[in-house]
This record gives sequence, C-alpha cells and structure tokens, in this order.
Amino acid sequence: MAYEFKATRRVEFSDTDQAGIMHYANFFRFMETAEHGFYRSLGFSVVMPETDPRLGWPRVHAECDFRKPLRFEDLVEIHLLVAEKRTKAITYQFRFRKLNEEPVVEVARGKITIVCVAHYPDGKMNAVPIPPEIADRIEVAPAELLA
Amino acid sequence: MAYEFKATRRVEFSDTDQAGIMHYANFFRFMETAEHGFYRSLGFSVVMPETDPRLGWPRVHAECDFRKPLRFEDLVEIHLLVAEKRTKAITYQFRFRKLNEEPVVEVARGKITIVCVAHYPDGKMNAVPIPPEIADRIEVAPAELLA
Amino acid sequence: MAYEFKATRRVEFSDTDQAGIMHYANFFRFMETAEHGFYRSLGFSVVMPETDPRLGWPRVHAECDFRKPLRFEDLVEIHLLVAEKRTKAITYQFRFRKLNEEPVVEVARGKITIVCVAHYPDGKMNAVPIPPEIADRIEVAPAELLA
Amino acid sequence: MAYEFKATRRVEFSDTDQAGIMHYANFFRFMETAEHGFYRSLGFSVVMPETDPRLGWPRVHAECDFRKPLRFEDLVEIHLLVAEKRTKAITYQFRFRKLNEEPVVEVARGKITIVCVAHYPDGKMNAVPIPPEIADRIEVAPAELLA
Repeated sequence: MAYEFKATRRVEFSDTDQAGIMHYANFFRFMETAEHGFYRSLGFSVVMPETDPRLGWPRVHAECDFRKPLRFEDLVEIHLLVAEKRTKAITYQFRFRKLNEEPVVEVARGKITIVCVAHYPDGKMNAVPIPPEIADRIEVAPAELLA
Repeated sequence: MAYEFKATRRVEFSDTDQAGIMHYANFFRFMETAEHGFYRSLGFSVVMPETDPRLGWPRVHAECDFRKPLRFEDLVEIHLLVAEKRTKAITYQFRFRKLNEEPVVEVARGKITIVCVAHYPDGKMNAVPIPPEIADRIEVAPAELLA
Repeated sequence: MAYEFKATRRVEFSDTDQAGIMHYANFFRFMETAEHGFYRSLGFSVVMPETDPRLGWPRVHAECDFRKPLRFEDLVEIHLLVAEKRTKAITYQFRFRKLNEEPVVEVARGKITIVCVAHYPDGKMNAVPIPPEIADRIEVAPAELLA
Repeated sequence: MAYEFKATRRVEFSDTDQAGIMHYANFFRFMETAEHGFYRSLGFSVVMPETDPRLGWPRVHAECDFRKPLRFEDLVEIHLLVAEKRTKAITYQFRFRKLNEEPVVEVARGKITIVCVAHYPDGKMNAVPIPPEIADRIEVAPAELLA
C-alpha cells in the first residue's frame, strides 16, 4: 500500500517561455511524470495493452496554484500524494518544490482527478471500477500530510 | 469594453498522445491562445516591451474540467469570458466546444487567474494595478453567460 | 494532382522559449501542420483507421535550416512542396516565411522524408507501397520551384 | 577538454503521439537536454545573464534520422559528440540508444549546429567568436567515434 511518490526533474530550455520562466502548461506535464512514476513504483504501467477491454486513465479535472516561478535548470521535486480514492476514480495532490535553493519552498500545488475507463472496440468508453490488483496497492495519504 | 472572445483551433497530431486524444496539458495552451487573441482584439499584446517597468501576466491559478476527449483534426472553439476583474487580477473562463460534430457540445471548461506584475531590473517582480488603458477595455461578462 | 500546400500559423506564447524566439523543435511541429493540411486538401487524413492493415506515416528523416528567428505573434506561412516521390516514401520541402513584415522573407527551410508503413496486430511494421488512391494525387513540384 | 556527454531520459506520456510512439519533434528537445547537460558538465550554463553583451546560442541547422521508434517509458541515452568546432560555431552529433532492451541499439542519429551570437540592446544580434573560457574546454571527438 502506497500513498505518495516523489519525482525529480530539471527544468529544460524547451520548458521555458519568453517570460523567462517555465510555461504554466508544463506543470501539468510534470504532474503526470510523478503520477506515472508512482505507478511504476507499484509495479505496473499506466499503459496496459494486455487488459481486455483495454483500460485507460483519462483526467476529468486538473488544477494548479502557482506561487513562484520555476526557471531554466531549476531542480524540481514533484511530490504526489493520494488525496482521494473512489471505486472508479483517484484524486492526486502534487506539491512542487524547488530543490536548488535554500530554503526549499513549495512553488506550486496542483491536483488531478483520473477515472478508470474501459475502451471498447467500437470506440466507446465507460467508467469502470479500478481493478483490485491496482486499487489494493493505493491508499489515501494521512490527513495531516494533505493539509 | 469587451467581455468575451472566441478563438478556433484544429487539434494537431503533435497535440495528441498515445491514448489517441489531445493531451490534457494542451487545453491550457489552447486557453492561452484565446486569451492572447482577446488582447489582440482589444488592440494590444500580452508582450509589452515598451512599458517601464516591464509588465508581465503570470498565471496564479489554472484549472480545467474535461468532459469529452478531443481528437486529431477536431475543430475546437475556445470561448473566453471575463469571469472576474480586480485591480491587479483577472479571471477568465474558457469553454471548449467541438465544432465538427452535430450537435456542438461543450467538451471542457477551464479557468485561469492572471495577475499583472512589474518586472524590475534586479529580477524582482511585484503585483501592480492593471494599467487603465487595458483595464478600461475589459469588463466582466453578464452573470447569465457565466452560469 | 497536387505538389504544394500553404498553411498559416501565428506563433504562440507557448511556442517561444526564454531566448524570446520560437523554440527550434516547434518548426518541426509546424512542418507537420502543413503536411496534414496538404492531405486534408487532397481529401484524406493521415489517420486512416479503416485500412487493414492499419497504415502509418513515420518520418525517417527531418532537417531544418534556421536563418532568422520567429517571435511571439509572428504570422508564418509554411509552404510545402513535394520534393521527391518514391514507391514507399515521399520527401517534402518546407519554406517558412514571416508574413507580418515587409519584405516577406524566408526565415527557415526544412525537409522531411516519410515512409508508408503497415502496422500489423503483432506490433510489427513494414514499409509498403503508398496506396494508389493517395499516390495518384501527389506529384513532384517543378524543379524550378524547388531550387 | 571534453568531446562527449551522455544524458538519459525516460520517454513520457506527453512525449508520445497517437501513433503510439515518441513524436519526432521531441527528439530535438532531447538533443538539447544532452547539449545543456554537456555545458553544465563543463561548469557553465547556456544561459549567461552576466555577459555584456548578452550571449546566445541559436541553432542554424538541425537534422535527425529516425531508425526505430521510441515508446512510452523507454529509457533513452542521448550521446553527444562534438563533431566540428569553428570560431563562432559548433556542430554536435547525437546518438539515441534505447537502454531498456537487449541488445542496446541506436534508434536515431541527429546533428545540430549552433552559433554564438551577441544580443545588443537594440534587438540586433551578431555572430561572435565563442569566448575562450568556453571554447578552450570543448574539443572535437576522435574521428573513429564520429564514423
């Protein structure tokens, strides 16, 4: 059972925009880096070609509060915490911390809600319960960590 | 005085991911397309090199609810509505509609809050009141449109 | 029979990097915009789910020479010319022109070679002849245009 | 004196497109990851705010040959080799190897040429000699490595 994961990334030149800071849409790409790293840490991949019907994990909600900018070559920790777990959906919280400056401060905080869906051969898709072999390995983080 | 703007984009191959749909981070790039088009429609650009100190418009909050996926070559309308206007900040609402299918439905709805900041030569930045030549041209959309 | 296509794009904020110009990798995304627009102008899409085996068009070569930078809000014409056509491959040339400044000058010139491949259910893929309904609509541009 | 550098990256979901492989434009972003890591390994950054006039490193040429696709979660080594060094320009070769499959094979090979330019306050820029403190640390790779 796991409720958190930490990924680390360095802000690349292609992540910046002409304001000289990381473009805000890239925070959402970085959230996914931590999410997929979390799954790998649990022994599975978000891409599961062998399931029938094929399962997918679309996002139904995403948000982020930006407090301080990230700049080229900043080293960022993306701290994933499981905020909510339902039969067919999980909500993750993400805390972005800039590691290359003392004191280490939180520069942004985000949240995504993903839903487990089955893709059918006719192109339709339906929300379905998260398979037990996945759901059983994920638990909600202690309330004091999420505050 | 303006309170809305509509931009149209076609989903490109590079906007999709291997789930076969537009990657969720790109909805935030599309919001910005509409935001910057809104400014151009009012006669100015989000990049104002001539102001002293230089002004910038960082995002402090962004969110999106995803209802239906967008796919390659879908034609999307991004409808910007001014949701809130304060001395130093504006909140925009964005409605994504897929134009290439009848009936036209809303596939996603987003929101960003931007703050007007002054960049000083020493690298510092401060929230400042939106200049009147800009603020005077922007008004909040009627409540019934925002519902 | 067609040998050229012109697409137009405005450089977006998310296309720029902190050097204040369009990030060079985005020229390759813009080439694809023109390529896929070319296919649409011929009445088909690069995504052909109904073919069996499924066809794909991976790139085997891409290159670009950058002469002048593109900046935020520049209006760019991407002029595709068919440079070479073989049984299983096509080479396109791309000329980028900045339309919002007089005189209109070429700011970059690129080239990609794509191959028609069949994707088999076991994950393998093979180069195959371009289907005649596509090949018959595409011809090489006159030599004087390609010079 | 250094003539090579190896960076490693994992292909992310947002790097893929709906063909199920890494989008080809991202190979150019990955080249830059290795280039900037090379500079960091030599003790400097591609962003040098303290120089006067400010120096920049625009790309004047970029190319890539794609042999095999990269997929989500593939672990990729990007091997930079200094291919040519002139007074004002450097050409790098990049070899992409997929590390998560035996045997490790080269999946793509690229090349970029960068030029050292000075940015003047009036917006103009000029090619200038690479500063000796940088040029002296970079040498061309042995011919047998570049073959």
